[in-house]
Amino acid sequence: MTANSKTEAPLVGVIMGSRSDWDTMSHAVRTLEALGVPYEARVVSAHRTPDLLFDYAEAAVGRGLQVIIAGAGGAAHLPGMCAAKTRLPVLGVPVQSKAFNGLDSLLSIVQMPAGIPVGTLAVGVAGATNAALLAASMLATRDPALAERLEAYRSAQTSKVLDDAPLTLPPQP
Amino acid sequence: MTANSKTEAPLVGVIMGSRSDWDTMSHAVRTLEALGVPYEARVVSAHRTPDLLFDYAEAAVGRGLQVIIAGAGGAAHLPGMCAAKTRLPVLGVPVQSKAFNGLDSLLSIVQMPAGIPVGTLAVGVAGATNAALLAASMLATRDPALAERLEAYRSAQTSKVLDDAPLTLPPQP
Amino acid sequence: MTANSKTEAPLVGVIMGSRSDWDTMSHAVRTLEALGVPYEARVVSAHRTPDLLFDYAEAAVGRGLQVIIAGAGGAAHLPGMCAAKTRLPVLGVPVQSKAFNGLDSLLSIVQMPAGIPVGTLAVGVAGATNAALLAASMLATRDPALAERLEAYRSAQTSKVLDDAPLTLPPQP
Amino acid sequence: MTANSKTEAPLVGVIMGSRSDWDTMSHAVRTLEALGVPYEARVVSAHRTPDLLFDYAEAAVGRGLQVIIAGAGGAAHLPGMCAAKTRLPVLGVPVQSKAFNGLDSLLSIVQMPAGIPVGTLAVGVAGATNAALLAASMLATRDPALAERLEAYRSAQTSKVLDDAPLTLPPQP
Amino acid sequence: MTANSKTEAPLVGVIMGSRSDWDTMSHAVRTLEALGVPYEARVVSAHRTPDLLFDYAEAAVGRGLQVIIAGAGGAAHLPGMCAAKTRLPVLGVPVQSKAFNGLDSLLSIVQMPAGIPVGTLAVGVAGATNAALLAASMLATRDPALAERLEAYRSAQTSKVLDDAPLTLPPQP
Amino acid sequence: MTANSKTEAPLVGVIMGSRSDWDTMSHAVRTLEALGVPYEARVVSAHRTPDLLFDYAEAAVGRGLQVIIAGAGGAAHLPGMCAAKTRLPVLGVPVQSKAFNGLDSLLSIVQMPAGIPVGTLAVGVAGATNAALLAASMLATRDPALAERLEAYRSAQTSKVLDDAPLTLPPQP
Amino acid sequence: MTANSKTEAPLVGVIMGSRSDWDTMSHAVRTLEALGVPYEARVVSAHRTPDLLFDYAEAAVGRGLQVIIAGAGGAAHLPGMCAAKTRLPVLGVPVQSKAFNGLDSLLSIVQMPAGIPVGTLAVGVAGATNAALLAASMLATRDPALAERLEAYRSAQTSKVLDDAPLTLPPQP
Amino acid sequence: MTANSKTEAPLVGVIMGSRSDWDTMSHAVRTLEALGVPYEARVVSAHRTPDLLFDYAEAAVGRGLQVIIAGAGGAAHLPGMCAAKTRLPVLGVPVQSKAFNGLDSLLSIVQMPAGIPVGTLAVGVAGATNAALLAASMLATRDPALAERLEAYRSAQTSKVLDDAPLTLPPQP
Repeated sequence: MTANSKTEAPLVGVIMGSRSDWDTMSHAVRTLEALGVPYEARVVSAHRTPDLLFDYAEAAVGRGLQVIIAGAGGAAHLPGMCAAKTRLPVLGVPVQSKAFNGLDSLLSIVQMPAGIPVGTLAVGVAGATNAALLAASMLATRDPALAERLEAYRSAQTSKVLDDAPLTLPPQP
Repeated sequence: MTANSKTEAPLVGVIMGSRSDWDTMSHAVRTLEALGVPYEARVVSAHRTPDLLFDYAEAAVGRGLQVIIAGAGGAAHLPGMCAAKTRLPVLGVPVQSKAFNGLDSLLSIVQMPAGIPVGTLAVGVAGATNAALLAASMLATRDPALAERLEAYRSAQTSKVLDDAPLTLPPQP
Repeated sequence: MTANSKTEAPLVGVIMGSRSDWDTMSHAVRTLEALGVPYEARVVSAHRTPDLLFDYAEAAVGRGLQVIIAGAGGAAHLPGMCAAKTRLPVLGVPVQSKAFNGLDSLLSIVQMPAGIPVGTLAVGVAGATNAALLAASMLATRDPALAERLEAYRSAQTSKVLDDAPLTLPPQP
Repeated sequence: MTANSKTEAPLVGVIMGSRSDWDTMSHAVRTLEALGVPYEARVVSAHRTPDLLFDYAEAAVGRGLQVIIAGAGGAAHLPGMCAAKTRLPVLGVPVQSKAFNGLDSLLSIVQMPAGIPVGTLAVGVAGATNAALLAASMLATRDPALAERLEAYRSAQTSKVLDDAPLTLPPQP
Repeated sequence: MTANSKTEAPLVGVIMGSRSDWDTMSHAVRTLEALGVPYEARVVSAHRTPDLLFDYAEAAVGRGLQVIIAGAGGAAHLPGMCAAKTRLPVLGVPVQSKAFNGLDSLLSIVQMPAGIPVGTLAVGVAGATNAALLAASMLATRDPALAERLEAYRSAQTSKVLDDAPLTLPPQP
Repeated sequence: MTANSKTEAPLVGVIMGSRSDWDTMSHAVRTLEALGVPYEARVVSAHRTPDLLFDYAEAAVGRGLQVIIAGAGGAAHLPGMCAAKTRLPVLGVPVQSKAFNGLDSLLSIVQMPAGIPVGTLAVGVAGATNAALLAASMLATRDPALAERLEAYRSAQTSKVLDDAPLTLPPQP
Repeated sequence: MTANSKTEAPLVGVIMGSRSDWDTMSHAVRTLEALGVPYEARVVSAHRTPDLLFDYAEAAVGRGLQVIIAGAGGAAHLPGMCAAKTRLPVLGVPVQSKAFNGLDSLLSIVQMPAGIPVGTLAVGVAGATNAALLAASMLATRDPALAERLEAYRSAQTSKVLDDAPLTLPPQP
Repeated sequence: MTANSKTEAPLVGVIMGSRSDWDTMSHAVRTLEALGVPYEARVVSAHRTPDLLFDYAEAAVGRGLQVIIAGAGGAAHLPGMCAAKTRLPVLGVPVQSKAFNGLDSLLSIVQMPAGIPVGTLAVGVAGATNAALLAASMLATRDPALAERLEAYRSAQTSKVLDDAPLTLPPQP
């Protein structure tokens, strides 16, 4: 189920607003690797490096990227501003924040006005993993080998539930 | 900017949990029409017609669909259960609900566990419109004519802002 | 106050969306055991094993189950989808989630549309315990011995409050 | 699908905290009537008639009631206090409130401590309807005729979705 | 600033729904002691000992109590049900809960319907302390010595702010 | 049940942050009148007339007031700042706000730090009515005639529930 | 209290994400006019005209602007992205949104990460008015005439409270 | 990038409601020091030292302060009451609270009524840092040296993102 996903030209760009988001966003990268999807990953801050963000988003189509995954927390502007500068599909991952546990991240990403879409995933690690799976599902519609790997990935998680050990009550406290 | 989007084999399936969601979801359909993306639209209820939902989702790949847009409100299970039964990308539109204004719809759709992704858009009409735009952006990566129409659509909304009449103060109350 | 609740044909089916929910849901099972209510418990995931869920729910009446208790967290679709596939009473337990502390779980379970009910309990361990007590109260209307055990259980918790040691101030910090 | 549900000895007691809750709770009563379930309905206020509430709850088992449905809004104490005084299953309906749209009603009803369960339904009319359906599903496990009526009710709502007219776009505004 | 507040006939009744609330409610008791206000403190559960609660509230006027402070968490019915059974002023303290951090406790206590008031304080320890101060302020309007002690208590906390050591930056991390 | 509550020296001061709060706060005044409690009512804004607020609160004890009821909306500082300047009991009424329906008003009033209490009532009209009832219950502990009027008021609302017309289903829509 | 605030070179730039925000943001402009502060007002959309936004923010210092007021709703990225591109103080006004009443707008604007500040005002009209007042208070520290006008404005609102007609009870309903 | 920011006459007053807020507010002070902005810092409690607050705010203009930064938690009245007593710009920092994680602090500070503005920053440390940056940006419009230091500060944080080490996946757990 592997592929040299780091040496091929990347199809998925994984960006995040801060190095501290890497704990969350590394789960997207791991999942892309497991599925053999070529990717790149880097920190691009909407607030601290706005010009870099615009350059990145504007160049994305020309560089052959087909999906962008953007993770950010708090007043999370990265996914939406990226989407404002490219016609590629942009997927947003709300990173869990300190004060509001990611409610601010979620609303800042998902409540985009009509005209500029961001496909938003769950807050935190589950969302990062699912952003990779959703990106793969988009690419799989034209890549039968990837479609097969994706289906194997899903079968494996179904089997894991079915084959799991029976539930046993923990010892009475 | 038109195309015979209703006579060609549909690429996008637009489903919704209840007829009352059509006021919202019709904005997805209008946008697909404006972009010339072939689609189909129907009511499929996760709760009242669960077997139909499973049949629909299972048959989707074979029928040539490439994206599914699912709208629902309240305890909105349609997008997630659809995603559980197909490897196609599923986009979720939280329909505004009565008691909680769509917060229940949003959390029920976006907070999917790792393994089964739903790309979630904003609550209500903006989300329905953007689901269509996001679906189009996915299809556009392999359809240059659609990519062009999508860019024209985006340029038009940029121009609308730039060309708009100047702001004038309303008469003092 | 015991009964061979594991060897008799189960009357209550306890299901949960993930093995990680067992920490919470084991409190339902312990309470059923304390009341001598025959039960079964297993992992059934709405998202990762949707077909198993449908099979389980469809077979429930025929297998003699009289109540189903379903626990899940996040975008918690298990109780509602189970209710969509059986006319048995379904009780839902919102498992506490990471980002939103179970608010997502609660709203995803309780906000069912008219037509398909889920009787929802509190978030977490209290809810799991109470799901078992509510199931027992349903069964007790036709099982006088269980009714007696249920009343004894309730008397015991009343006595515990009444007989408790007096309150004493902790030493001044 | 009818039965003389008002003349037989009531099996379901429908109570509500205020006359103003009747707009919501009448949907529970209509649904019980549609399913031929004998019921009674009255205003019992936890705050303004606490003694009546205790008398009602204490007498419920002896009077032959098998389920109690209690609806209330705001600091909604009726369902929980009723459950504190009877071992019958109690179902709670959060009535939509003015300031918090029923979030206060929902949390006041659903967040019961371990020991005293209330099976909680959705906020408002959907919840009232579903409380009746859940009560019926409990009674149906020992009443085959009611089970049949319940299944017919569910089939009818499935058919309504399947037989509905096709979706047509509203005229462009 | 002390008084034999435990030997005199109590003027303030401090009750709480569970022994686990004592960590919070002991701060009310400590404050009453500091102000020399005679009190009593005990566990009275609305859900597990409803009859005791009614007896307690009904007897309160006759026993000479002048204020009741009631603390509870989750679906916190104790303050409101106490208020329903006595014309004495009832002050409510929302105890911090696990899933919703006391939002459920707060709304369950404060959102009382017109007719039955509960004066609600902040969630947790601050609220418990302030319930005692508010009770003392009520009693102080007819007890000049207590009024003086209350003013001394307030002056002391003002002085504490004014006399505090200057702020110094913590060492750079 | 009346008393010349406007001509006697006021015992309760009713203040509010803005004239627009009068729609809500007039319910407090009406209830004080119904109970024959002497009062005064005026607009005192914490933000626009801070000096007036301080003067009012400082003079309150000397003028013979025994309770202050303060209503405000949004960032509602009036009750808390009033409490900071007097040892009299202060009751706070959160006025329903536009954007957050009174959640901001409620949290701004109820979440006072340890040391300065505000007894908070429900958002809106119910809270205003209950502030008056709570003020009356405080005064009634030393005024037997008022205690009697208060009990009559409560009995009347109990009777209203008990004597009300039976519930009848609205005509089928 | 007037000044030719439209003919002088603007000191305050008022921008908003959409023409529909003008109903709210015109209150900022009216207040600037009342205080005689030179301003300009225009629609600049972060999502639909991102390049215009960057050009506007980059040129602001050079054009002599001293404060920028930015209003937006939903996933409101305008104030934060503007702040990312200029060192001028940026004030953010959360426009009330449909689904979440401005909670999304507020969190998207106020929860900026350390490094890029946005001074955020209240949701809606009050916030727009206050953004103008805050901008004026900044400019007033170096403009004694404006400081005087600002103090006159504040005195006038104080007087309005003090001189207002007495409160009278509305006729009994 | 330093300046003798503690010996010069302070331009920025940093106040906070409690000594426990210093953990948060010290980040404002550190940032002012880094930028060479003269400041003073002290505890001023709206609730425990209201007279001190009024004196402080009234004297601020005369003492040469140009901005006030006020931090507080819970029912956070300090920033708003300070703004009520001075025409200087007031910036508010919501300190993270225990029960509601700062949502109460945020709403109590930001939701000021029209007429008295408080420029509100993010909850917690980020907000404290940004209050200092926003204060500096105000002062920088008339202090070219400070403007340069502010731009250097911003460049440094941009460079930090650009020069950072590449992302590497953590070892597989």
